[in-house]
Amino acid sequence: MSSRLNEFRSYRTRMNDRIAQIDHLGIKRFFNLDGAAYKEGALDAKTKELLGLTASAVLRCNDCIDYHILQCVEAGWTDAEIYDALNVALVVGGSIVIPHLRHAVETIDLVRAEAAGDT
Amino acid sequence: MSSRLNEFRSYRTRMNDRIAQIDHLGIKRFFNLDGAAYKEGALDAKTKELLGLTASAVLRCNDCIDYHILQCVEAGWTDAEIYDALNVALVVGGSIVIPHLRHAVETIDLVRAEAAGDT
Amino acid sequence: MSSRLNEFRSYRTRMNDRIAQIDHLGIKRFFNLDGAAYKEGALDAKTKELLGLTASAVLRCNDCIDYHILQCVEAGWTDAEIYDALNVALVVGGSIVIPHLRHAVETIDLVRAEAAGDT
Amino acid sequence: MSSRLNEFRSYRTRMNDRIAQIDHLGIKRFFNLDGAAYKEGALDAKTKELLGLTASAVLRCNDCIDYHILQCVEAGWTDAEIYDALNVALVVGGSIVIPHLRHAVETIDLVRAEAAGDT
Amino acid sequence: MSSRLNEFRSYRTRMNDRIAQIDHLGIKRFFNLDGAAYKEGALDAKTKELLGLTASAVLRCNDCIDYHILQCVEAGWTDAEIYDALNVALVVGGSIVIPHLRHAVETIDLVRAEAAGDT
Amino acid sequence: MSSRLNEFRSYRTRMNDRIAQIDHLGIKRFFNLDGAAYKEGALDAKTKELLGLTASAVLRCNDCIDYHILQCVEAGWTDAEIYDALNVALVVGGSIVIPHLRHAVETIDLVRAEAAGDT
Repeated sequence: MSSRLNEFRSYRTRMNDRIAQIDHLGIKRFFNLDGAAYKEGALDAKTKELLGLTASAVLRCNDCIDYHILQCVEAGWTDAEIYDALNVALVVGGSIVIPHLRHAVETIDLVRAEAAGDT
Repeated sequence: MSSRLNEFRSYRTRMNDRIAQIDHLGIKRFFNLDGAAYKEGALDAKTKELLGLTASAVLRCNDCIDYHILQCVEAGWTDAEIYDALNVALVVGGSIVIPHLRHAVETIDLVRAEAAGDT
Repeated sequence: MSSRLNEFRSYRTRMNDRIAQIDHLGIKRFFNLDGAAYKEGALDAKTKELLGLTASAVLRCNDCIDYHILQCVEAGWTDAEIYDALNVALVVGGSIVIPHLRHAVETIDLVRAEAAGDT
Repeated sequence: MSSRLNEFRSYRTRMNDRIAQIDHLGIKRFFNLDGAAYKEGALDAKTKELLGLTASAVLRCNDCIDYHILQCVEAGWTDAEIYDALNVALVVGGSIVIPHLRHAVETIDLVRAEAAGDT
Repeated sequence: MSSRLNEFRSYRTRMNDRIAQIDHLGIKRFFNLDGAAYKEGALDAKTKELLGLTASAVLRCNDCIDYHILQCVEAGWTDAEIYDALNVALVVGGSIVIPHLRHAVETIDLVRAEAAGDT
Repeated sequence: MSSRLNEFRSYRTRMNDRIAQIDHLGIKRFFNLDGAAYKEGALDAKTKELLGLTASAVLRCNDCIDYHILQCVEAGWTDAEIYDALNVALVVGGSIVIPHLRHAVETIDLVRAEAAGDT
């Protein structure tokens, strides 16, 4: 049942590897900058992942939502805390966010089922 | 010099009061829901303001950015922490966010100058 | 052939039920507010569904488009009227809306085929 | 007090005239197509203006909102009906629409004051 | 392996044909205007396709990206040049564009494999 | 009459200088990356400025439009060529781009008047 998560992970890894082969310094630097944005700084890395999830939700990008949910769970955010962040995104972004809320809630359930060995 | 902040505050208050006079239950309930989204829940109110600021920045809304900066400062976030959140917004949202980063940084400076009595 | 519509309906119902189990007052209230926005008010419910469809089209959300087409057809809008609304969305939103126009026209055809028992 | 409306009208007219001088068939045709989208068709012109307003509000364009409010008032929509359309836009588009709701409500008031000779 | 391209092409053709059957002058004219925008003018057609690709990437529309990549390759742009345009889109639009960059790079690879008879 | 351009330039310079004082490596690196994206690469710098303008227009950012028009003029693009790029943006992005087209055309006129010493 978590095949959706695995498909996402393998496609993401495969294409990131493919992009890493491209000889373009700007693209490489952008990926580095993107990774660095979520490292501990004035804000801790855990908080930044929640910012990334909220930004992804209001911009309505399912792949970005999935990535940041995986990171948020790994960083130790509880489901209730993630739902609370998604509620901020819902109120800011409106009902057009609802299909992405459905996707996000399904992803959270898949991640938890996977962690419980219930895959 | 903080006349920009005062203009923002007075326009916002005046029009929110005007909207409150409108006899439309849906609009009233939306404003209540909006206010409630930033109250203490599974996440504390301080974290939620930072989520609101990041969402406002990637959606490129100066008025929303100004409102959430005022709230973030009141909630106790330092400049360095707010810059770190804005950096996440910049990386997620791209260079199209830069004009709003300029606005945000100016707003932070105005808020601090105001607090220092330097208005 | 209308399996796409049925998949959409069953996923939407399943995930809305799942979200309804989440203990978050803000999310529950948002869903109520969303439902209420399309009820008879100063504008009749039929007109509001067309507004919802047009908003969904310019914001380029296929799930939202499908939902509002189902509602528009149920409310009694003809295909010609729905196309005319989609044309407004196309002109306002530009050629980036075209993939969603394709999706919308396909959905209308699926809904009509379904109603004709031609599934 | 309606100087904001007059500024909008004169800038819009001046720049549309300037654009009309540009020797570019595509731009000319786009403006014609835009005008034609709001003419009586399967839907009446009045309904289409409300669609245009809702689309402008969720896409958060103040100039477009002002233009369509002027058209909606001329087409005979009441304030209560326009507020009801703006509520749909608010729920679909979220709190990020609120600054544009403030602007829209102010514009409606300016248009009504102007019509009442109270300028 | 290029079944994704073929599915895209056949769905696009099928639905464009279906839309062409709709008796709506505005929609027909919009499609004509869209086609005309990429013809030789003050700018040559090749440059315009690259503009179309960049616009599609920052607006995050995979179908539009696929269409313009097909056109860009046909117009003679090399992979390195297309990557350079996508880098502009990435910097302007931010990390939210990354899932679409993955899609775009995969599409370029599929188009090249197809041309090499390696399908 | 080109006071609008001068205001834009001085605000942009002042706030970029202010942002440069902020001790945040990520923000500094983003600005560098942004500058680098428009340098000669597989594509020449002139072409990239036109891509930047088109992206700015469909994303509806007046400050970004102004910046790229200044760069496009400096890079040697003629008015007719810039209009042709803006037409692509108009068709891709729809009538919601029109207020930004007005702004862009005014900016082009201001830049040309300035160059002619007619300020």
